[in-house]
Amino acid sequence: PDHQRMLQARTRQGVLTKPPGSLGRLEELAITLSGQLGTDQPAIDRVHIAVFAGDHGVCAEGISAFPQTVTAQMIANFAHGGAAISVLARQLGATLEVVNLGTVAEVDPGLAGVVDDVIMPGTRNLAIEPAMAHEQLAAALAAGDRAAARAAAAGAQLFIGGDMGIGNTTSAAALACALLDRSPTELAGPGTGLSAAGVSHKAAVIERALVRHGTGRDPVDLLASLGGLEIAALAGAFVGAASRGIPVLVDGFIVSVAALVATRQHPALRPWLHFGHQSAEPGHRSVLAALDAHPLLQLDMRLGEGSGAATAVPLLRAACALHNQMASFAQAGIDGSA
Amino acid sequence: PDHQRMLQARTRQGVLTKPPGSLGRLEELAITLSGQLGTDQPAIDRVHIAVFAGDHGVCAEGISAFPQTVTAQMIANFAHGGAAISVLARQLGATLEVVNLGTVAEVDPGLAGVVDDVIMPGTRNLAIEPAMAHEQLAAALAAGDRAAARAAAAGAQLFIGGDMGIGNTTSAAALACALLDRSPTELAGPGTGLSAAGVSHKAAVIERALVRHGTGRDPVDLLASLGGLEIAALAGAFVGAASRGIPVLVDGFIVSVAALVATRQHPALRPWLHFGHQSAEPGHRSVLAALDAHPLLQLDMRLGEGSGAATAVPLLRAACALHNQMASFAQAGIDGSA
Repeated sequence: PDHQRMLQARTRQGVLTKPPGSLGRLEELAITLSGQLGTDQPAIDRVHIAVFAGDHGVCAEGISAFPQTVTAQMIANFAHGGAAISVLARQLGATLEVVNLGTVAEVDPGLAGVVDDVIMPGTRNLAIEPAMAHEQLAAALAAGDRAAARAAAAGAQLFIGGDMGIGNTTSAAALACALLDRSPTELAGPGTGLSAAGVSHKAAVIERALVRHGTGRDPVDLLASLGGLEIAALAGAFVGAASRGIPVLVDGFIVSVAALVATRQHPALRPWLHFGHQSAEPGHRSVLAALDAHPLLQLDMRLGEGSGAATAVPLLRAACALHNQMASFAQAGIDGSA
Repeated sequence: PDHQRMLQARTRQGVLTKPPGSLGRLEELAITLSGQLGTDQPAIDRVHIAVFAGDHGVCAEGISAFPQTVTAQMIANFAHGGAAISVLARQLGATLEVVNLGTVAEVDPGLAGVVDDVIMPGTRNLAIEPAMAHEQLAAALAAGDRAAARAAAAGAQLFIGGDMGIGNTTSAAALACALLDRSPTELAGPGTGLSAAGVSHKAAVIERALVRHGTGRDPVDLLASLGGLEIAALAGAFVGAASRGIPVLVDGFIVSVAALVATRQHPALRPWLHFGHQSAEPGHRSVLAALDAHPLLQLDMRLGEGSGAATAVPLLRAACALHNQMASFAQAGIDGSA
């Protein structure tokens, strides 16, 4: 981000017709976006949403309320416009693409808006073996980077990454435990709707995985051992977006874990990240704290797909409009404070 | 609100392609709006914003960081499109009107979008005498009701009331103290930007007013003694909007105090109220708790004008779009949870 632009934007916020600071976080958003976009007139007109989808071998352990077939079915739902993120993308006028990294069930090859980046038909079972080989991880990171490149080519002013993958809260919680040195009983949650007994079982599965793979390791190694294809692609996409000067609006638990892995590997990513919402998934709070992140929304959402981030986009747009369009005290001929 | 519609909307939320409850408060918003608007397809396309402006005699006590001339100057700024609420209303495609209830400085009579409902050139000094007579209070309540009638005539699906009046956090805090039996040291805050010493002085002025007028009185009497013209008009507008079947999105501290007075007088108003944001003004938390209100946004805003409520409108629109446009599990051919 361009710190000179940020200083100029802060000065401008101080002369607009309002008590200084009275727009709260909207002022900070406008200032940060000004620096990230390198302009005195920040705007978030063009938003690129990429939903990364992949299946998880750990579903063999019975850790999800939904069957694995749903991942492929939801890819079709995204493409047909019926999913939450499809509706939100339409409302925002955002471009939406779905990146298929590999599912257990077959995905109709003719779906519009679905990018075929299939690496493998879902990860292996992280409870008993590494989720993916390093070549497969590299492929997933590269698929994420290509999504960022498409966003840049489309002139995107904001990148949103979403996730779809039955079982992925187990993978994300395992990664968070390993990266933050926390217990699975602290970070495992109900995901799509497990009972309390289901959450306990899920925590035990994660505990087994942590013992199997070890925790105090390089983030990239942990991502191969415990990650998902979509989580790895998200990490690659965020690094790719920031390196191309596109700010990122981070979604919920899964996506924040991807952001955590990516910032551990590339600390220069952090100043490019905004955080859309705090998920109801209990592990999210710890991941956000580790990122020193203060999400814009707390609406008890826990859907994934990028839906929480998409819901927060109008706040960025409001911040920009206020910054660009409000009159100054001098322009409006208004007396200042005593 | 139509409870049958709300039940139908809740059923629909349960079959949309997402884990049940995973859209969190957006689900509750859609269900509530369905009942308030009496439709299976709730929409917030037409938003009416009325900013009520009036001056405060208590400014003689030196309780504001800004001079009283600013109230009239800001009316012109609203009309010319340079104020925060002007920018936000444009972005939302909302209708914006400013209702001038009386200012110390003269308001240019030719301003477009300003409704001349002048009652008196600002209230009297509530620290030493009643802010207004009962006839003046009745006129302010009626001015609010006329704004609600204009919203209804325009087919508004949402009513937002904003406030403008230098000194009005003093009036609002005095009302909140009297209604909630709290101390001014708890509820007085910096308003547009007082120092700690300024806040202490403001609390002492409010304490003097509470002793002068008494606290355990009818809400309407308290409104006459301690209120502002714009606070009274807001109360009248909210009752008028609800009685015409228009849901209300409540703004920050001042507006919430008006909502508190109005619900004390008309408890049937409460189910028509949504709450847009939690203000940084410290007294707001207590007023919200008394209303059992959980605002949608916490962005440290404290500007007034209806700006916090306007910022929250896209959340209502997202909730409606998701409710109306998402596919069901059956429509999308997606397997349900186990």
